This record gives sequence, C-alpha cells and structure tokens, in this order.
Amino acid sequence: MSADGGALAPPGASLIEALDSADIGEEIYALAAEIYPICRSITGPGVRETLARLAERVPLEMHEVPTGTKALDWTVPQEWSIRDAYIKNAAAERVVDFCKHNLHVLNYSAPVSVRLPLAELKKYVFTLPSQPDLIPYRTSYYNERWGFCMSQNALDALPEGEYEAVIDSTLEDGSLTYGEFVHRGETEDEFLLSAHICHPSLANDNCSGLSLLALLAKRLAGMKTRYTYRFLWAPGTIGAIVWLSRNETSAHRIKHGVVLSCVGDGKDFTYKRTRRGNAPIDRAMTHVLGHMTAKPNIIDFFPYGYDERQYNSPGFKLDVGLFQRSQFATFPEYHTSGDNLAFISPAHLAESYRAIVAAIDIIENDARFRNVLPKGEPQLGKRGLYAAIGGDKDSYAKSMAMLWVLNLSDGEHSLLDIAERSQIPFRLVADTAELLLANDLLAPAGRP
Amino acid sequence: MSADGGALAPPGASLIEALDSADIGEEIYALAAEIYPICRSITGPGVRETLARLAERVPLEMHEVPTGTKALDWTVPQEWSIRDAYIKNAAAERVVDFCKHNLHVLNYSAPVSVRLPLAELKKYVFTLPSQPDLIPYRTSYYNERWGFCMSQNALDALPEGEYEAVIDSTLEDGSLTYGEFVHRGETEDEFLLSAHICHPSLANDNCSGLSLLALLAKRLAGMKTRYTYRFLWAPGTIGAIVWLSRNETSAHRIKHGVVLSCVGDGKDFTYKRTRRGNAPIDRAMTHVLGHMTAKPNIIDFFPYGYDERQYNSPGFKLDVGLFQRSQFATFPEYHTSGDNLAFISPAHLAESYRAIVAAIDIIENDARFRNVLPKGEPQLGKRGLYAAIGGDKDSYAKSMAMLWVLNLSDGEHSLLDIAERSQIPFRLVADTAELLLANDLLAPAGRP
Amino acid sequence: MSADGGALAPPGASLIEALDSADIGEEIYALAAEIYPICRSITGPGVRETLARLAERVPLEMHEVPTGTKALDWTVPQEWSIRDAYIKNAAAERVVDFCKHNLHVLNYSAPVSVRLPLAELKKYVFTLPSQPDLIPYRTSYYNERWGFCMSQNALDALPEGEYEAVIDSTLEDGSLTYGEFVHRGETEDEFLLSAHICHPSLANDNCSGLSLLALLAKRLAGMKTRYTYRFLWAPGTIGAIVWLSRNETSAHRIKHGVVLSCVGDGKDFTYKRTRRGNAPIDRAMTHVLGHMTAKPNIIDFFPYGYDERQYNSPGFKLDVGLFQRSQFATFPEYHTSGDNLAFISPAHLAESYRAIVAAIDIIENDARFRNVLPKGEPQLGKRGLYAAIGGDKDSYAKSMAMLWVLNLSDGEHSLLDIAERSQIPFRLVADTAELLLANDLLAPAGRP
Repeated sequence: MSADGGALAPPGASLIEALDSADIGEEIYALAAEIYPICRSITGPGVRETLARLAERVPLEMHEVPTGTKALDWTVPQEWSIRDAYIKNAAAERVVDFCKHNLHVLNYSAPVSVRLPLAELKKYVFTLPSQPDLIPYRTSYYNERWGFCMSQNALDALPEGEYEAVIDSTLEDGSLTYGEFVHRGETEDEFLLSAHICHPSLANDNCSGLSLLALLAKRLAGMKTRYTYRFLWAPGTIGAIVWLSRNETSAHRIKHGVVLSCVGDGKDFTYKRTRRGNAPIDRAMTHVLGHMTAKPNIIDFFPYGYDERQYNSPGFKLDVGLFQRSQFATFPEYHTSGDNLAFISPAHLAESYRAIVAAIDIIENDARFRNVLPKGEPQLGKRGLYAAIGGDKDSYAKSMAMLWVLNLSDGEHSLLDIAERSQIPFRLVADTAELLLANDLLAPAGRP
Repeated sequence: MSADGGALAPPGASLIEALDSADIGEEIYALAAEIYPICRSITGPGVRETLARLAERVPLEMHEVPTGTKALDWTVPQEWSIRDAYIKNAAAERVVDFCKHNLHVLNYSAPVSVRLPLAELKKYVFTLPSQPDLIPYRTSYYNERWGFCMSQNALDALPEGEYEAVIDSTLEDGSLTYGEFVHRGETEDEFLLSAHICHPSLANDNCSGLSLLALLAKRLAGMKTRYTYRFLWAPGTIGAIVWLSRNETSAHRIKHGVVLSCVGDGKDFTYKRTRRGNAPIDRAMTHVLGHMTAKPNIIDFFPYGYDERQYNSPGFKLDVGLFQRSQFATFPEYHTSGDNLAFISPAHLAESYRAIVAAIDIIENDARFRNVLPKGEPQLGKRGLYAAIGGDKDSYAKSMAMLWVLNLSDGEHSLLDIAERSQIPFRLVADTAELLLANDLLAPAGRP
Repeated sequence: MSADGGALAPPGASLIEALDSADIGEEIYALAAEIYPICRSITGPGVRETLARLAERVPLEMHEVPTGTKALDWTVPQEWSIRDAYIKNAAAERVVDFCKHNLHVLNYSAPVSVRLPLAELKKYVFTLPSQPDLIPYRTSYYNERWGFCMSQNALDALPEGEYEAVIDSTLEDGSLTYGEFVHRGETEDEFLLSAHICHPSLANDNCSGLSLLALLAKRLAGMKTRYTYRFLWAPGTIGAIVWLSRNETSAHRIKHGVVLSCVGDGKDFTYKRTRRGNAPIDRAMTHVLGHMTAKPNIIDFFPYGYDERQYNSPGFKLDVGLFQRSQFATFPEYHTSGDNLAFISPAHLAESYRAIVAAIDIIENDARFRNVLPKGEPQLGKRGLYAAIGGDKDSYAKSMAMLWVLNLSDGEHSLLDIAERSQIPFRLVADTAELLLANDLLAPAGRP
C-alpha cells in the first residue's frame, strides 16, 4: 500500500473511534459549566481565566498582544478589568448586582460612580421589553461609555428616587489574549477550528463551542493525522484580525476550517457555507449533517456573523464555514440571560462533537481509487465478499456500497464524490473501499 | 477617480433622479391618450401622424422607406390610406362606422364598395363570439382582402336584408415610416429601446409603449450617459426588418435592448429573456423586477411575440428582451376594443417607466471594484461609516450592503453580481460602493 | 442534398412508419405468450428453446460458450437441465408440481431425491408470507443447493407427515447460450438493445422485453439505417459479462444503448439514466417519455438492476440506459407468479415499442442545420409555408416549430437541442427541418 493508499489504513475508521467516547457530551458540558460564570470580554482577565481552565485539558499556548499593536486595519484596544458593579437604591440595597450576573454590566463598560434619579438612570439601562424576564447582553467596545443591563420587570419594579450607580472597572493598556493549540499532522496543510471567547455568561454562545474544541483538541493531541489541526480560542473579530495579522504569510496553509458557536442547544444543525460555497469543508459538512438530520439548515455565506467573516475576507479567502445548532440571532434566548446552562445539554453537545468528527474524518480520509478489474463487475461471491457481509442486517447497504465504489472508482471520483452521489454515509463508503483494497480490487489513485 | 471609477460619479444615483418626476405617469398617459384615436397600420398616414405627436416631445427623426425596397428577405409593402368605411342597412343608416372605432375595419383592408345580402356580408365580418360585446382587432397585411370587425352582439342585431359595404381605402406605392431618436453617450455601445407603432386604437398594445419611450427619450436627451441610447418606433416585424436591413453593419453595437409593449395595465410585470438567456439585460431586468414585485413573470425566450424575434435572429443575436405588464395574448382585452384608455392607468405606466429606468441604471453603472484593505474587515467605526448610517432606520440594510461590497469587491465581482448574491437592490449596492470609494476603501477595477 | 443533409431524407419520418404497425402490440404479446411457459435459467435448454422461438421472427445467431470459459473476472458456469420436480405427500400425491409452474423449483437447483418430515422439508421451501397466494421466484446460481418455492397458503395446508422431494435436474459441463442479431447500418457506430433471457415464467420480467426486441429486430432488418443495431438476448450478468469479454476490443463502438425489461405492464414509464447521466440516449429517452406521459419516472444511474451495470462499468463506460414501465422491485407482482400473462397487455407493449422507436428516430436523425437567411425571420408567407400548414388544425404548433428551427439553426444547435428547448416533439421538429430544407431555408451543418 503506497503512501496515498495509506489514507484508509489507520487513521480511517479508527480516527472516529479514537476521538469518540460514550461520555463526551458530559465532559464537554462539565467544562462549559465550569467556564460559564467567568466574566469575559474582548480583553482582560476573564479571557485568561477561561483559557487557564481549557489549558487543564489541552496544552494550549496563551498569546498576549499589547494594547496599541497594529493588526491589519485595526489596533489592539485597552484591557478591561472589572471588580464590581451595582445599582443601589436609597436604602443602600443592591437592586442590580454584577456579582449575581455578569450580564448586568454593559460589557467593556467604562468605570462610573454616580448618584442620579431614576429617570436619569434609565438612560444608562438596557432592557428587553418584549422578553421582560430576561437580562440582555450588550457591549460597547469601540465607543467608550457606561451602562447596565437588567430585566424589564426589575426595572419596572424600581420606585422613583435617587440611585447610586457604580461600575468598578478599568480600561487601561495591557494586552489582548488568545489561546492556540496546534496539532502537527503529516502535512503542513491545516484544518482550522475556531471559537470566540469574548462572551461572558452565555452558555450556548459560546461556552459550548469553547469547551467542545478543548475536548476535541485533547483527544486529537495524541493521534497521527494527515492534516495539521489548529485550534483558536480568540475574542470575536479583533481576535481573528490579530491572529490573521500575525500569521499573514502562513494563513494560506489553512485549507479547511470551521467556526463553532451555539453548539449545545436542542435545535437541528445549521451550517453556513464558505464564501466559495463548494469548498471541501462545505461538501463534508453538508454530507455529514444530511445524514444526521432530515433537513439541516444549510445556508449560503453572508458577510455577517462570527469570525468566518474575517477568514473569508477577499484578502485571505480561507475556506472556513460556520457550524451551529440554532442559527445565531434566530432563537429567543440569543444574547440574553436565557442562554444559560439549562439551555444546553450533554446530549446535544455530543451530537455536535460527532458531526465535527465526522467532517474531520472526511477531510482526513477522502481519497481516489482505481478499480483494478474495471471491466464488468468483479465476481464478489468467489472472494467471499458477499459472505463477508451477508450475515449482517445491513448487508444490502453494504452490497450497494461495494457496487458504488467499484463503479465510480475510475481514478476520478473520490470517496466523497461517491458518498454524495450514492447518498451512502462517507464512513461506510470508506470502510467499503478499505475492504476492496484489502481484496486487491482497488488501487490507490491519489488525493482529491 | 479614474475614468473607470467614474461610473459611480454622476451619473449614478443622479441618473435615476434626473429621469424621474412625480407626474411621469400622468405625462405618459396623456400622450398615450392623444395618440390612441389615430388609425395606424404598418404603413400610411396614421404612423406619420403618431410620430408627429411624439416628435413634439423628443426630436426624433422620421424615416421614409419606399415601397418595393428590399429589406433582408422582405420587401417594403404598399402604403395604406383609409378615409372612411361603413356598412349601411337598407335604410342607409350606418350600422358599422369606421369613424366611431377604427377597429371596425380589417387593418390594411383593400377598398370595396358592394351591396350584398346579410348572409353574404357575414363572410367578410369578424367577431368574437366568446366576448360578444367587443370588437376584435384583425389584420391582413400580406394577403390582399377586405373585411370588417364588429361585436357579435351588433352582428346578431342586424336584420336580414341587403347591406352596402364601403371601404374607402387605398393601397398604393408610397413608403414605410419609422421614427428613431439617438442619444449619444460616451461610447458607441448602444442600448436599444423599441416599440411597435402599427396597432390602431389599442391603448395598452401599444400606445403605452410608444408614449413611455417618447417621454423617456425626452428626459434622457439632456443627460450625460455612458451608453448611446437608440429609440425606435417602428411597425411590427417589417419595421424591425427594415431597420436591421439599413443598419446591418452597425447593428452589432447594440449590446443591450428591450422591446416594450403592454406596459400600462394593472398586472404584475412580465419579462421575456433574450435568446441567450443570461445577457446583462436579462440579469438587470430580473433583478429590478424581483425587487419591485413578489413574483414577476420571468419567461424564457421563444421566437414569437414582438420585434425581439428579429433582433434575436441567429444572424444578429442582439441581446434584446421584451418587457410587458400583462403578457401578450394572455389577457381578455388583448387585441379587442376592450384594450382602451380605461384599461391603462398613469400609476401603472409610472411603475413600468421606473422599472426601465432602474434597468438603465444598472447597465449604465455596473462596475467592478477592488477592496483596498482586503485582509479582514476594515474598521468602519473609526471612519465614521457606521455613524454615517447609524441614525438611519435603514441602517442594518446599509451596514449589510457595506459588508457585502467589501467582501465581494475582489476585482472579479461587479456591483450587479453583488446585488444578485446579496439580494440587495442594485442602487443601494451602488450607493454603498460610492461611499466606500469616497472613503478610499475601494478602488475601481473596470467594467464587467 | 449532401450526405449530412441526408439525415432528413428517408429514413426520417419514414423510419417510424416503417417500424410501426397497428397490431404490433398483439404481435409482441403473442410471442411473449409463446415463450412464457419455458423454464429458462442462466444456462440450459430453456434458453435455447426460447431463442429458437425468437429466431422464427429474426435471423439471430445463437452463441454457445463452453462451461469453464474465462470471461473477464468470471467463469462460465455449468449447464442446468431440469426434467421434473415435485413434492409428494404420504399418499403419493403431488402437492407441489414443477409441471404446473416452473417457479416451484429454486432456479438452477441441484438434484435431490429425499424423504423427510414436514418440519425438515420447510427448510427447503421458500414462500412469501405477505403475499400468501403467490409463488416466489428464487435462484441460487453460484451457491449449489436445492429448494422449492410455493405459496404460503399451499404450505400452510400441508399436514404433518413425511414427504418425498424430488428434483430431477442436472448440473454438468455444457455451454452458456445467448442470441445476437446485428443489423448493419451506414456506420460502424452501434446502438445496443439488450434483454435478459434467464428468467423462467415471468411475463413482464422479461418475456415482454425479449419479445419486443425480437419484433423490433424483425422490422429493422430490412431497413437502411445510419447506425448499426445490435440486439442481445442473454442471461443476466453472466451473459453480458461473456459478451463483453468476447467483444472487449470492439465494445467501444456502442455509442448508445438501452436495456429493456418489464415493458408490458400498465404503469407509466421508467428510464434509468446512464452512468454519465446526460448521454444522447438519456436525452432522447427523457424527451420521448416526457411527451408520452405526464410524469415519467426518470431516475439517475445506480449500479444495481440489470445488465446496464456491466455496460456502464468503469472499464467500458458504454452509454446504456434501462427502460421499463414499472421499475423493478417496486411492484407487488415482481418476482412472483403474479407476473403472468394477465399482467401484461398488447396495448402497453405497443406503447413501449413506440417509445423505443421514437428514441431510435432521434438517435438516427438528430442533425444540425444552418439557417440560410439568418438575419431576421425569412418571409414564410411568400414561400407558401404558412399556407402549407395553415389548413391544418395543428397549424399553430407547426408555425412555432418553424420559428424555433429557424431561430436556433445556427449550426450549433441540433434538432434535439431545439426539441428540448422548445418542448416540441422531436419528430415535428425534424419534419419541420425537412420542410425548410426543401425550401432552401436551411443547409446541413453536421451531426451532433
């Protein structure tokens, strides 16, 4: 078996087995729950603390980029630290308390300490009148101001009178922090997996993605792979911009990529294609999700959303898609206190994990083969290949997979081509190719 | 700004503003009403009189082509003049009177003066049994005969007896007449706008088209444009054949074109594609109509209809589509006395006018640009570009337009490409490109 | 008229007329009924006897290929002969009798003569519990064993007790038999028509196909054609493998082909595309069936079914589709005694025959033409071409066909291209081209 054919030697099916485990959902959930309370922002100790927890699972590298550093068209902003924040009523009782929920503070808020009447205070308070029980998540990164967020009901309950509003935060020169873990494969070609780390206590968006990637990286770390896998946990927009700026000349090595967010809720899957629209990662994710759920929400690229915007910018054109369960901005809990740990579940996290693993399996193992006996069908019976599968309840599916692989293995069609055309799951197609290869009915014919 | 970039300098949005006016619908309607009573045919004084009215708005040129002139495979026919026509009953009362409605005479009818009993007369009378109140429109251009048209009800009311049928017409050598107005643009490339002038008192088909083009030509006359605009008011089939014959060597300059007919009624829009099917004019019209109405009737080319048949013939292959509201031959009033001035309205004429203007805007102003900061997204906030649009209620749409233009402006995608892919109206895309150009975020990259 | 133009000289419309006859359905049915009772298998006297009956209609050649002959990856198996088979009860009454229905024996069954109790006997009996009245059709070609097939009801009616099971069959060296008829055309390019001959008393699958091909071959035999037509009546899989093996170097001459089976039942048409998917035969069959029925079942190639599997194998890549009425394995009578002579009818056989003839007409006569007067439309009236068709009730369709052929005959579009785009039946398009050719409005421009 040549180096090319090696695609179907381990790793192969074994990649999926090695990456999976029965309790993967619980493990992802536990880490998500652990980092959920931390108050993250685009810079500051919250990001560092989160990365420290992830680093207990995977030996990631923490990068610090000083405030003021130029990054493409942007500049690294000041670092934000927050110690406390509250609104006290006339009786000096905390009616809004950052310690109870970090969404209460406008993220990246300037410090303030002021007394003011209710009418005046309201100018600095964000609520969601249509979802009166929930605290909204609001930010003000590039426009310095202060503010609070609270539920409409809580605001309505405040009596007239004077209030004290205090935000004990700091905006000062420091650094922007991001985490990176690189698993070296046989080639320099890279598969990028990226999640934003800037959101505070929002479970689905994006403790789910951060945690899933950490545990995927942990498992992948010990394996032999063809691709190099790069994991990024970075603040949204500015983090990706900074990373691209520092890796401007080597970013082209990224051949496939997925941004992950909102991967823990109970909706069906969403996949947003790359700008190119038919990249291998688009085909892989579409194939995988099409076999996992009846009607996955496969949508075309648009230049809004998460960091796929930056990766797909015309100066880089990296083939990076976005993977989610609920599509961002379409679910009621989005960017509210409703996006909490009850909104995500181990079972759904495990499904998302397995979808990504299945896509990795395709990208790793897709290959072309040549039918060694291409004239007519080989007589499978005399080789025991029907017997090999006959006892199986899936024998019809396996026979069909064998006929498809033999028929389309003309050196032009890859296993993914065959899987797409036959609508047979890629893994069965690949296992079948391995079986036929072992029976000298196929020969390797290169990578797609 | 280079010559290329000039696309988004005036003209640009200003083209639309300059061509529009609040009362454009009334103005088109008034001219249509003025020419409605004239008895036109493929040749003769009716055409000349109609062109004279149009010429009061726009300095068109009237061409006269003598009877017998060879034109491609055809020959210019004799000129038809008609002074009077009637059927009188035994009491010498006019029971059918050309002076009351010119549809009463078979168009291009040979002269006749004859007395004959009702049964014999009926052989020369056309009616519409299924629409017994309406007078049909019938012609006999290339087969000399005489005849009358009347409502079925009127025919049924005629008592037995002898009748006198008189058609005081002349068929004699003369000339075929067509009108032409050419607005010179910066280039020799042409945009053709063509309407048939041979139908008598039919308001939608085609007083509406004749009039719309006259008032569009009037407004365009004073403007600076990139394309040269050629307006043709010519008799159906033979008029286009004659024009093509006389412009055989220069017709290739026509890069885009639209035939207009039936543009005044109240139905949604119809656009029939060019033979090529995906010409720029097809894309422009499809885009425009898709944003004006929910389900425009966009149909493939077929070699029947109006003069797009001649322009799209395989020896010319000019990219000329057909624009209508109701599709010809599909509405009950089609080719009957029901197609009168009550069937068209100023509001609908104005909508049709604006659709054509929007298509012209696309053809004039489509251009490619290159994102000057293509790596990652430029920081729009620091340039006040979010501010520039933030106060707007349409700010989300404007932001999305900015992101789309930046993302796809790689020198390959034109503004129309971007408008199609983003489903954002072309004009907003073009305005956005102009804004980004003014902020040095785009550079011109040529014409599509 | 040049050789190219000759496409529309006879043959042309005349091909269809020559191949058709009013009673073709009855003729096919009669032959199907004649061969229905014969017990065929992949080898043996049943195949020979069937071919002898077909040979009474068409001078086919009978090929005998000895047992043990290597054929691609396969080996010609032993010959199977069967004289009698039965199950007798304790009273020596035949409770299952091969003489009453040859489906009662597992096809290609090894001989046996044994006494055994009911419980033991049942291990060798196949039934259809969900269709308890029907005898299933079962085979065991490459795995030597014995068995019977019977209805579930008949099995249930058997009392406990001892039974005698006898199969008087022979499996011994001999030969595999297939029939072939080649009609030589002007060129060596071939059109293959193939039907499997290995099924015993199953009327639709495939007495219908065997018989249809015999009578098509009979009629085609005397005709002048462009293509060479090759008819094959061969046992499924091994027959096609053997033929391909023996014609390995010349098989590439097959440019178009259709496998026929199940062409006599009352369902709409099924056509399974070639592996390539858009071969001329795919386009021809899709066009023909689209005009014969509202919603033909046009399905993509998959490597399972009949001998199209072998012809489309990657070492041959012959453009051979599959034509059926009911798709195999989708109708309740499939592979049961319900597939009898009452399940097929002359009318449905005639429709299937005419579909194939119409496809042959397209493959034979498709050609490209050039409009001699391509600038504008030619004036048809002065050539009497409107008159030529005006008196016809189909005159609108004929006029449209003329306009389409003139518009698209630019030397690039073939008649089939025009038929597809205009949705006008190919034969009308071809007749129209012939008329225009005769009027010097078209000139030949080659074959597609």
